[in-house]
Amino acid sequence: MKKILVIHGPNLNMLGKRETGIYGETTLTDINEALKNLAKELAVDVTVFQSNTEGALIDRIHEAAVEYDAIVINPAGYTHTSVALRDALAAVDIPAIEVHISNVYKREEFRQHSYISAVAVGQIAGFGVNSYLLGLRAAVDLVRSKQ
Amino acid sequence: MKKILVIHGPNLNMLGKRETGIYGETTLTDINEALKNLAKELAVDVTVFQSNTEGALIDRIHEAAVEYDAIVINPAGYTHTSVALRDALAAVDIPAIEVHISNVYKREEFRQHSYISAVAVGQIAGFGVNSYLLGLRAAVDLVRSKQ
Amino acid sequence: MKKILVIHGPNLNMLGKRETGIYGETTLTDINEALKNLAKELAVDVTVFQSNTEGALIDRIHEAAVEYDAIVINPAGYTHTSVALRDALAAVDIPAIEVHISNVYKREEFRQHSYISAVAVGQIAGFGVNSYLLGLRAAVDLVRSKQ
Amino acid sequence: MKKILVIHGPNLNMLGKRETGIYGETTLTDINEALKNLAKELAVDVTVFQSNTEGALIDRIHEAAVEYDAIVINPAGYTHTSVALRDALAAVDIPAIEVHISNVYKREEFRQHSYISAVAVGQIAGFGVNSYLLGLRAAVDLVRSKQ
Amino acid sequence: MKKILVIHGPNLNMLGKRETGIYGETTLTDINEALKNLAKELAVDVTVFQSNTEGALIDRIHEAAVEYDAIVINPAGYTHTSVALRDALAAVDIPAIEVHISNVYKREEFRQHSYISAVAVGQIAGFGVNSYLLGLRAAVDLVRSKQ
Amino acid sequence: MKKILVIHGPNLNMLGKRETGIYGETTLTDINEALKNLAKELAVDVTVFQSNTEGALIDRIHEAAVEYDAIVINPAGYTHTSVALRDALAAVDIPAIEVHISNVYKREEFRQHSYISAVAVGQIAGFGVNSYLLGLRAAVDLVRSKQ
Amino acid sequence: MKKILVIHGPNLNMLGKRETGIYGETTLTDINEALKNLAKELAVDVTVFQSNTEGALIDRIHEAAVEYDAIVINPAGYTHTSVALRDALAAVDIPAIEVHISNVYKREEFRQHSYISAVAVGQIAGFGVNSYLLGLRAAVDLVRSKQ
Amino acid sequence: MKKILVIHGPNLNMLGKRETGIYGETTLTDINEALKNLAKELAVDVTVFQSNTEGALIDRIHEAAVEYDAIVINPAGYTHTSVALRDALAAVDIPAIEVHISNVYKREEFRQHSYISAVAVGQIAGFGVNSYLLGLRAAVDLVRSKQ
Amino acid sequence: MKKILVIHGPNLNMLGKRETGIYGETTLTDINEALKNLAKELAVDVTVFQSNTEGALIDRIHEAAVEYDAIVINPAGYTHTSVALRDALAAVDIPAIEVHISNVYKREEFRQHSYISAVAVGQIAGFGVNSYLLGLRAAVDLVRSKQ
Amino acid sequence: MKKILVIHGPNLNMLGKRETGIYGETTLTDINEALKNLAKELAVDVTVFQSNTEGALIDRIHEAAVEYDAIVINPAGYTHTSVALRDALAAVDIPAIEVHISNVYKREEFRQHSYISAVAVGQIAGFGVNSYLLGLRAAVDLVRSKQ
Amino acid sequence: MKKILVIHGPNLNMLGKRETGIYGETTLTDINEALKNLAKELAVDVTVFQSNTEGALIDRIHEAAVEYDAIVINPAGYTHTSVALRDALAAVDIPAIEVHISNVYKREEFRQHSYISAVAVGQIAGFGVNSYLLGLRAAVDLVRSKQ
Amino acid sequence: MKKILVIHGPNLNMLGKRETGIYGETTLTDINEALKNLAKELAVDVTVFQSNTEGALIDRIHEAAVEYDAIVINPAGYTHTSVALRDALAAVDIPAIEVHISNVYKREEFRQHSYISAVAVGQIAGFGVNSYLLGLRAAVDLVRSKQ
Repeated sequence: MKKILVIHGPNLNMLGKRETGIYGETTLTDINEALKNLAKELAVDVTVFQSNTEGALIDRIHEAAVEYDAIVINPAGYTHTSVALRDALAAVDIPAIEVHISNVYKREEFRQHSYISAVAVGQIAGFGVNSYLLGLRAAVDLVRSKQ
Repeated sequence: MKKILVIHGPNLNMLGKRETGIYGETTLTDINEALKNLAKELAVDVTVFQSNTEGALIDRIHEAAVEYDAIVINPAGYTHTSVALRDALAAVDIPAIEVHISNVYKREEFRQHSYISAVAVGQIAGFGVNSYLLGLRAAVDLVRSKQ
Repeated sequence: MKKILVIHGPNLNMLGKRETGIYGETTLTDINEALKNLAKELAVDVTVFQSNTEGALIDRIHEAAVEYDAIVINPAGYTHTSVALRDALAAVDIPAIEVHISNVYKREEFRQHSYISAVAVGQIAGFGVNSYLLGLRAAVDLVRSKQ
Repeated sequence: MKKILVIHGPNLNMLGKRETGIYGETTLTDINEALKNLAKELAVDVTVFQSNTEGALIDRIHEAAVEYDAIVINPAGYTHTSVALRDALAAVDIPAIEVHISNVYKREEFRQHSYISAVAVGQIAGFGVNSYLLGLRAAVDLVRSKQ
Repeated sequence: MKKILVIHGPNLNMLGKRETGIYGETTLTDINEALKNLAKELAVDVTVFQSNTEGALIDRIHEAAVEYDAIVINPAGYTHTSVALRDALAAVDIPAIEVHISNVYKREEFRQHSYISAVAVGQIAGFGVNSYLLGLRAAVDLVRSKQ
Repeated sequence: MKKILVIHGPNLNMLGKRETGIYGETTLTDINEALKNLAKELAVDVTVFQSNTEGALIDRIHEAAVEYDAIVINPAGYTHTSVALRDALAAVDIPAIEVHISNVYKREEFRQHSYISAVAVGQIAGFGVNSYLLGLRAAVDLVRSKQ
Repeated sequence: MKKILVIHGPNLNMLGKRETGIYGETTLTDINEALKNLAKELAVDVTVFQSNTEGALIDRIHEAAVEYDAIVINPAGYTHTSVALRDALAAVDIPAIEVHISNVYKREEFRQHSYISAVAVGQIAGFGVNSYLLGLRAAVDLVRSKQ
Repeated sequence: MKKILVIHGPNLNMLGKRETGIYGETTLTDINEALKNLAKELAVDVTVFQSNTEGALIDRIHEAAVEYDAIVINPAGYTHTSVALRDALAAVDIPAIEVHISNVYKREEFRQHSYISAVAVGQIAGFGVNSYLLGLRAAVDLVRSKQ
Repeated sequence: MKKILVIHGPNLNMLGKRETGIYGETTLTDINEALKNLAKELAVDVTVFQSNTEGALIDRIHEAAVEYDAIVINPAGYTHTSVALRDALAAVDIPAIEVHISNVYKREEFRQHSYISAVAVGQIAGFGVNSYLLGLRAAVDLVRSKQ
Repeated sequence: MKKILVIHGPNLNMLGKRETGIYGETTLTDINEALKNLAKELAVDVTVFQSNTEGALIDRIHEAAVEYDAIVINPAGYTHTSVALRDALAAVDIPAIEVHISNVYKREEFRQHSYISAVAVGQIAGFGVNSYLLGLRAAVDLVRSKQ
Repeated sequence: MKKILVIHGPNLNMLGKRETGIYGETTLTDINEALKNLAKELAVDVTVFQSNTEGALIDRIHEAAVEYDAIVINPAGYTHTSVALRDALAAVDIPAIEVHISNVYKREEFRQHSYISAVAVGQIAGFGVNSYLLGLRAAVDLVRSKQ
Repeated sequence: MKKILVIHGPNLNMLGKRETGIYGETTLTDINEALKNLAKELAVDVTVFQSNTEGALIDRIHEAAVEYDAIVINPAGYTHTSVALRDALAAVDIPAIEVHISNVYKREEFRQHSYISAVAVGQIAGFGVNSYLLGLRAAVDLVRSKQ
């Protein structure tokens, strides 16, 4: 069974408790549950991981390389500032899909540049929780089309 | 039954005949067929439209306002240059979803700015034909969640 | 009797039906009627033209050269992106006046550069429908002062 | 009777005596007279004020707030450099209309940015003396439409 | 016999009637005739096409792919603003040569960037009508060297 | 007894009467009174000065040099545009503290550069009237620590 | 009793041991003691926290939300590079005050942009240890004025 | 006898009393005396004027037009920020020579752009008091060569 | 008989021996021979000159002024960095034509700015050796049309 | 015996397992062994440290200050984004040498700015594993020359 | 007797023969003669040197160090492009004065940056031949004031 | 025996005689001697070359191609301005190593861009004379690893 790692970047543990005007009222637990349900429907295995520390995210990506078939990642605030995270994704052989909850293009100028995009397969942004679910579908399609 | 309009921007009629290294070998006919199949599965109605003329795309968007529930649009070359297309999407009440076949962030600098993104609900890029299918799913989810 | 051509750029056909917070509730028909009324008062002849297609606007400007004494143009979205429209206005001998319904300087950064301004006689922006009427007055004064 | 204050910025006292290639041969006295005549025609009261000192212009704007219904201002050289003038116009409740004699978009790069535009209702530029007269009309229309 | 398509972009139909200080007094008909004469001398077939509409130029390029050996194109105002035109030239297999009548480097800043140059074989600019004739020679040399 | 000069820049005389959403409802008289009260508490002497004229502010700073121990200055609109004011503060030997009522970093881009900061000891911004009071405390601490 | 959390960013543990020309000779222990003393005087409770790890700072801010009334933060090097830290402050409901020991506007260009400023209530910079004490006062005033 | 007006901009009244590391120890009185002496030697008449107020400098330039043959101006801080001063010099028919005491190219970046240079005949900078004396010589040579 | 000077800039002596992927395998001797042959066909006299030293190229251009009717120049690396070379071409009365072997617009960003273009009659780039031959034709046409 | 600390930044633990086209096939273990061997040859003591966490790298640098004579650091992805790491190196008294495995100047634009360079003694880049060995030599020479 | 070296940069040998609209009709010989005459009057020794080669100018500056008391240099085209020339002037102990014949601030944008200014004592520009004579005076005053 | 060419760029002949604060007191002769000694130790042959003329440096590089195995080059002032030098290094097959005596990243902004870096194998900067010695070692290692 194909294995997908879903990585939540910094501050996503606060989801649903914070700035609900931008991010909605769904919590991270709700998202993880929705991901598990869709995984079951698509017959894949999903693991989730959240950290606020750049280095911990990098460590997790390195470990993923030997165990997972694809990564779905919401790099959150590190999207715009982390070359190290970009290098981590480039350093592993498995494909990564970048997702964002909000439409970053309606927000501050600095949120419109991503260090991650050029090393990801593709991006999905602006659909709230559904960004993750579409990202999981994209990952599964990608992994299966490579078989 | 919900109705979705899928708009293909300039040069997409050449798909599968051109630069296959970047865009793959699928033709526009293939994409449209895949969209129709998924539409049937999701129980929605899909219409497709392609034009190389900015004004014709704008006209079609205006007409769509009274008949469709959502737009999935690949603005292609006009993504980076057309304020008029942006204004057309802003001028109609129905939601738009921006899709791109290639990962524009791996290409020329000028392809990394979109006039469309800020007036779309969200973006999906880099998944080849699948960008359209994920876009259609996103549109359907969006339309249904608003009911 | 002096003849003035009033050109409405892309999306202005949607006026009054769209983003009324920015553009107000007056429709294009209302504007054209107001222009006709003022034309009668000023004893000039006014023709109106609207298109969403850059090329069609250029064609109309070329034709105008032999028949009209001045052009009042709201280039809308093409203001910020069309060198071709600029060249068309520069290519004809009759004076052009650039008008905008909204105060573009209160909007997005990209709306603050106009390719048209340097080839127009002058600009009028921010007065709603009245921008057109002031533009028509300016055109008539200009044409008459040249006699 | 509605009262309009017309403010002339720095160096406009030299009008008609200076750089006539750019600004024409009309003097400030001519303009003020033309404004008075139009005011009579439009049945409003017009006061004129000129100063070369930024602080004096600001003081005059503050005073205007309690006595006038609108301001027509040609900020001249301060257009491009004065945040303090912008703040003065923002600090008073009455609407301001920005006018320029020449078409600033045909001149030096630095003349194409205005600190005033975003706090004015609208702009009129390039019509010589007529910019002021159109500005007065715009002010009167504005004031009357608010009644 | 080799076939070359010569494409004239927006406003070139006004040639000889407009801004003769920049573009000279030769009309488009004169240019086309000169091209036909040189074609006869070089024993190739030349077709000419002019349109002011971006989409029409793109359509014509797509059609050319199956019938012509090379394109000589003066993209005029679209040179600086059209990614769609660039993509159209990239989408067809035949070589394109970019020509300009005037020396664009002596003109406005914005005329010094071309979206077309990177997808053309080469550029010829500044020689008036002769730019087209040199472009035709270059095209013929190119086509013959590939045989 | 230590003497502190508090300088209010342009438009601050309108405080409490203007844009209360940004600046609050406190008037300049209120601020001056609060400053006097705190001065009494801290056992220092406070003088206040307000002008809308750049030159008058400069003159006042020059005079202060021989009489005061420190300056607390809210340069308001001149913060972002006045090299002359910066040079005036650099020209006198006494320390200056820059204060702002609003958090300028939440406002327009141009308000985020200060010509004054590099010649001031420090900055305090965003605390409303309290910015002045904290500024006065900082000035007093500074003056006393130098003894 | 109101509770204030004071957060010291990266390298502040080295204070007094490093670059004393810029930061002075006070150690972090001295600062914390001075904060405690002032807290006692102001009858509030102060907790201090220092970490060199971005993620640890974020975690601490998240925890603070349920226990503290305000945050005083010196983000040090992360001021200029951390969107994640900005998002953390934006994600919690309690007000934050940004303090800096040195006057960053006298230092390198890159130190003059702060990601934190726009989500903080206000900034205090350049007063050495006193920046923290003024920050604590500001926090207390803020918290009390909201009661 | 030819008449030359020497204008000293803002803060120059503080010369010799301020930042002597940059500007030296000569006072404005010393400079004026040296100018008078050289004027006698060159058999011309010199008047000096200093003000810290932009508007006062502009007024003085306007008046000079009818009485003086040339202006030698050290615009000091207004060099870099005053379009109004530039316009004043452009508005009068007599030639202006821009002088600076210090070598501005060794100082802050913002001191390296002058709004005045393009409307002056020439510039002299970096020679301390001698900049004025060389400026006076240049003015005299200029005025005499025009006779 | 008309005389044309062909100038080869720095490193062109290495042609055919270097980076053949970009510049092809033709040597400078081959090019010079092809130029001589075409010169014979066109009945003009061609002299060639190559140097790696900026000053030597300038000296040669100065000398050319009295002897030649036109210059065809490939400024190579000096294209992007030499104002002195630009000034040399501007200083002589004979027309210059700028040629490049490769299509510089497909290469590094810094190769896309030319100091030479604005003082040349026109540019020809991207046709390999043929750039020189087309340049020679253009020069001859130019020289003959001026007779 | 002199002691040198060699710090490996983020993702260097993946060396030899990742992007071997850019970084070669040597692993971090190989590098560390080569460093140990050279250390023996040079009669110094070498300790190695690797972490993916910015804060952990900072902590290690702080500790190093009391024990080591010099630091050789490959900051990897943090080179371009970490002011905190720069401040850590500036905060300790021992010299640092910046090394990079690849020639960063042949890679993405953003890799061409280093926050570290200005606080390091010098840089060595592009020599693969040898960059470290040259860095160690440089460190030893530096430390010995200071004795 | 004090010795001054006057250095003329590239293309100045063409003076009076070239672009007389910008540089006037005086030849280099005329300038050198005028310099000799003034030198006699000021009782100093003047040597002149001209070269079009950057390296030759640098060599001459190096040699000057041991023989001359000051340099007056018109770096012409190398002003804007030569770091090596700047370094040469910085490498010698004698003061340099930068002169320009034309007012560079009225010309192309790229002529408004000088690599030389920051290493020169001062600049004199815009006075035609007189720039050199004023420069010589400045040099003599400087040399004598240092005695 | 392997042969290495060491090239010293402009002004390096002045080393030890100039700006010793930046470059130290070692002369070029000292450096060359140290290089010869190390060459003997490493059993390679070293030739040194210095010139202040860009063209002479290019000529020497061209000649080197047939005789040497590697180049160690300190391009000095030409580092930042010479595309021609870059092209010369790219045009020869042997590897080049870029060295700088000072840490250019601590100096002026313009010294932080190198045209040479992208065509060199690697860079070594900031170690004084040792930069050359490390560069020679790097060259020897490189040449030997290629055998």
